[in-house]
Amino acid sequence: IQGLIKSHPDVYAFAKDNKRVITRAKKASNKVGVVSGGGSGHLPVFTGYVGKGILDACAVGSVFASPSVDQIASAIRNGDNGNGVLCILGNYGGDVMNFEMACEIVASEGIKTKTIIVADDIASAKNEEKLKRRGIAGMIFVFKIAGAAAEANLSMDEVFKIAADANNNIRTLGVAVSPCTLPEAGKPTFELSNDEIEIGMGIHGEPGIKREKLRKADLLVDDLCKIILDDFKLSDKDKVTIMINSLGATPLEELYIVSKRVHENFSKLNIEIIKTYVGRYATSMEMAGMSITVLKLDDNLKKMLFSQNECPFWIN
Amino acid sequence: IQGLIKSHPDVYAFAKDNKRVITRAKKASNKVGVVSGGGSGHLPVFTGYVGKGILDACAVGSVFASPSVDQIASAIRNGDNGNGVLCILGNYGGDVMNFEMACEIVASEGIKTKTIIVADDIASAKNEEKLKRRGIAGMIFVFKIAGAAAEANLSMDEVFKIAADANNNIRTLGVAVSPCTLPEAGKPTFELSNDEIEIGMGIHGEPGIKREKLRKADLLVDDLCKIILDDFKLSDKDKVTIMINSLGATPLEELYIVSKRVHENFSKLNIEIIKTYVGRYATSMEMAGMSITVLKLDDNLKKMLFSQNECPFWIN
Repeated sequence: IQGLIKSHPDVYAFAKDNKRVITRAKKASNKVGVVSGGGSGHLPVFTGYVGKGILDACAVGSVFASPSVDQIASAIRNGDNGNGVLCILGNYGGDVMNFEMACEIVASEGIKTKTIIVADDIASAKNEEKLKRRGIAGMIFVFKIAGAAAEANLSMDEVFKIAADANNNIRTLGVAVSPCTLPEAGKPTFELSNDEIEIGMGIHGEPGIKREKLRKADLLVDDLCKIILDDFKLSDKDKVTIMINSLGATPLEELYIVSKRVHENFSKLNIEIIKTYVGRYATSMEMAGMSITVLKLDDNLKKMLFSQNECPFWIN
Repeated sequence: IQGLIKSHPDVYAFAKDNKRVITRAKKASNKVGVVSGGGSGHLPVFTGYVGKGILDACAVGSVFASPSVDQIASAIRNGDNGNGVLCILGNYGGDVMNFEMACEIVASEGIKTKTIIVADDIASAKNEEKLKRRGIAGMIFVFKIAGAAAEANLSMDEVFKIAADANNNIRTLGVAVSPCTLPEAGKPTFELSNDEIEIGMGIHGEPGIKREKLRKADLLVDDLCKIILDDFKLSDKDKVTIMINSLGATPLEELYIVSKRVHENFSKLNIEIIKTYVGRYATSMEMAGMSITVLKLDDNLKKMLFSQNECPFWIN
């Protein structure tokens, strides 16, 4: 965290009351606050997305661990500009519980909050149980869209609504190729043979849908697209943006092979991809693997997604 | 390459005459062209830096292999806007030879060229033999600065001069922790034990200065800073920008630990770091390791470095 602030002092600052909370270097005024938080080990998620036009503040947990209730309460207080705070978090037990308690604490101090729990990982629960799904790379689209809506001075209800719309319109599916090693544990978080991959594995090594032998990238991507589109009924009039996200070690060269094939799959179905994000947006330390995220856009979401922001990790 | 163009059609396009050459989607006019080229496996280097305000065209070789003379000649022709072309390349045998031949070919067609060979890797040759040094992450600063100067409609001589100034003012030192695997070979490019690192190893696995046991990040960074500052005499009035670059797998979390310590080292010497770039700028597939680049700035270099550009891999 110190390195992040020393490296980008014009973007990030420590909260005055808590060294595990990052705020914008220059506090916003007179807008809805947008706050997130979660474990470390996923940079740029979560803290990296603090910045004008995205998040106001973020609570930073230890590697793969939820921030404490105190940290989250501090992030909410620091993110509040007098108009209430929208909390956006991934659907993980500790995060959900601690955010809930923190929101109760700040409510008693007069800060109004609303919460969006991002649940985009289609591998983690069936469509009928969508609310049980984990939040992964799709979270960043929600950060960006809610942040843009708040920056445009929309009301709390409006910011909440557009963030909820984004959340409903996102699907992500990932694949893991090799594990990461937690610094404290010093050993890999899971085991996969050299010739195996696991489809749908979570960003902390949570079990996926199926484990199978490595095969050609194009065939794998065809399969992933099919699973996504079976879950997410898109029609040939729909416009989407996609994110091809590396879990860490997987290089851009491989992500672009994936991106090419996703474009080919969507093109066959006449689904228009109006923007493609390729890079490391939500990682799991040095895990190898990648995820494909699809966000269906309407005019409102599009306007917010492409609005200006100041953040070292998001180019429009 | 197809994936890159499908993903960013507003930035990149295929050259009409050569599918291993990338040009800007919208050709510039009436400015000096800036062209690069080199092997694949280093994204965003080289092709990723094509875009308004940086490169006009790039010749793409196979993984870790120089592009052919034909490809480079095509890149130069496509990058030319009638005012000549500045070629910027890393100091690798094949690249240097092929660029030289390509420049001769296009000269016979009436295209004037000048060439900057970036040689920033202080581990690859002694200070007295600077011209023998390899080009690594520092290359990107030269791309950006030359590209900005060309975009500002400076003359060929002026663009060449500022690019040469940048090249003279850059030092890079890297460290490798684990190898990458070439897709065609299917085996790691070199071997390092789990508890070993190699200081100064090149981005294709070329031998470095010394191999040693892993130790605390802060101690390693102190050592790297000392080696850099022994080579690059900076005074306490100097202003620099630094780049903390992952070779691929090394995550942002670790890069920021490095960045923090570099800031502490430079701060002790009263050398002002006016901008810090942290990320994957010049990689070696999924190699683990990182490099520290220091660019000493004067007012001209600063103006060019911070000018606007349109490229998915460079935020100002």
